Amino acid sequence: MTSPTQDHGARPAPAGAPDVLAELTGAVRAFAAERRWEPFHTPKNLVMALSVEASELVEIFQWMTPEQAAAVMADEKTGEHVREEVADVLAYLLGLCDVLGIDPAQALRDKMVKNARKYPVPPAPVES
Amino acid sequence: MTSPTQDHGARPAPAGAPDVLAELTGAVRAFAAERRWEPFHTPKNLVMALSVEASELVEIFQWMTPEQAAAVMADEKTGEHVREEVADVLAYLLGLCDVLGIDPAQALRDKMVKNARKYPVPPAPVES
Amino acid sequence: MTSPTQDHGARPAPAGAPDVLAELTGAVRAFAAERRWEPFHTPKNLVMALSVEASELVEIFQWMTPEQAAAVMADEKTGEHVREEVADVLAYLLGLCDVLGIDPAQALRDKMVKNARKYPVPPAPVES
Amino acid sequence: MTSPTQDHGARPAPAGAPDVLAELTGAVRAFAAERRWEPFHTPKNLVMALSVEASELVEIFQWMTPEQAAAVMADEKTGEHVREEVADVLAYLLGLCDVLGIDPAQALRDKMVKNARKYPVPPAPVES
Repeated sequence: MTSPTQDHGARPAPAGAPDVLAELTGAVRAFAAERRWEPFHTPKNLVMALSVEASELVEIFQWMTPEQAAAVMADEKTGEHVREEVADVLAYLLGLCDVLGIDPAQALRDKMVKNARKYPVPPAPVES
Repeated sequence: MTSPTQDHGARPAPAGAPDVLAELTGAVRAFAAERRWEPFHTPKNLVMALSVEASELVEIFQWMTPEQAAAVMADEKTGEHVREEVADVLAYLLGLCDVLGIDPAQALRDKMVKNARKYPVPPAPVES
Repeated sequence: MTSPTQDHGARPAPAGAPDVLAELTGAVRAFAAERRWEPFHTPKNLVMALSVEASELVEIFQWMTPEQAAAVMADEKTGEHVREEVADVLAYLLGLCDVLGIDPAQALRDKMVKNARKYPVPPAPVES
Repeated sequence: MTSPTQDHGARPAPAGAPDVLAELTGAVRAFAAERRWEPFHTPKNLVMALSVEASELVEIFQWMTPEQAAAVMADEKTGEHVREEVADVLAYLLGLCDVLGIDPAQALRDKMVKNARKYPVPPAPVES
């Protein structure tokens, strides 16, 4: 039996192809530059802002039951709130990667290789 | 003078271009599925995990001076640690978007339109 | 009927009573001083450390069901872990208050007065 | 030479003395009970709320220089904001300890004993 880990996995996009993360990173960078926010966007400040935005996501869910949390997107206003906080987390994550020179997609591909060794796939149940 | 906001901005990648976020989301989803982690990956649990990973980034920077933080990638071991925590934040963010049915790139494009109204570009300094 | 809010409420301890927060704050301060950590214990760094410790508490609970979370202290090892992270949060909270000159007990008493106005007690159910 | 660690340290309050943490914990408990919030105040939800409040403290400081952060209490409005967020963190910490049956003061005393072993006091500089 072929392990399913050999059938998928994160693969780099073809060389030269436009990349949605590069597009979004450029937009985030330009947004900050136009407003002259770069002096504030130090790595230390950006990790703080990233964690604050992640907590704003947590705040939406903190008093919900698991059932309410699972249905969060069904309520239009709350769903939009979640989308906005997701966007804020992504914006600061890309901004941080930009100032640090990190390629977030490659960082994730590398981390998944490492995690696959740390958490091996459990054996498939035996079919009888 | 043309406002710089009209010259860039987050635009969708051309149709047919490979979408690195879709690729990474698929890899994150398969990783969890192979390990039968889906029952744990509820929205409420994923936002908690996301905020925990964001705090692990904060932990790296918490005692650094601004100067040390700016040079964080110059130290190979610390730089690799930062890359790994960035990857973990991205993994949980994509996993959360996947279970909630959110397109993170479009969420960020929409949020930047909203933010551009909230934070107008200041007038350019007058040239004399 | 007398409102229950008039029957209790946070009241200062009687004059002369030992103040456990002052005791603990003194211990936290001396611990940092002996190790010459004061230059690192700036307000900005301490709020980062506080939030990191709070997230270490979240990490313990992130994959638990509500039932598992409710029984967390029944497992000796996990219960001790929770106690230690609670201690770390309290230590940084007291350290932060110390460097900022905030009396945490009085801050909480004042906040509860404000919160009582913000969240009025709902009317008691009518007895029939 | 007597080690400074023997001259101070967190000591329990005399048995039977009123305790500011017990007072505040009682007030926090009554506040939640009057509003019938207990069903929401599960350990998992309370750690989420605690981390969210800690992040609201971080939010105040995230764009400040170290100098601005050091002077944060000099601005009346910002200083009051800091006091309120400190109070919120303390309230959820005490509420969490209450539902879990943890004595936060004793937890901190125990943790400091452990930390003292982990981080030994460096030798005093030799006087010449």
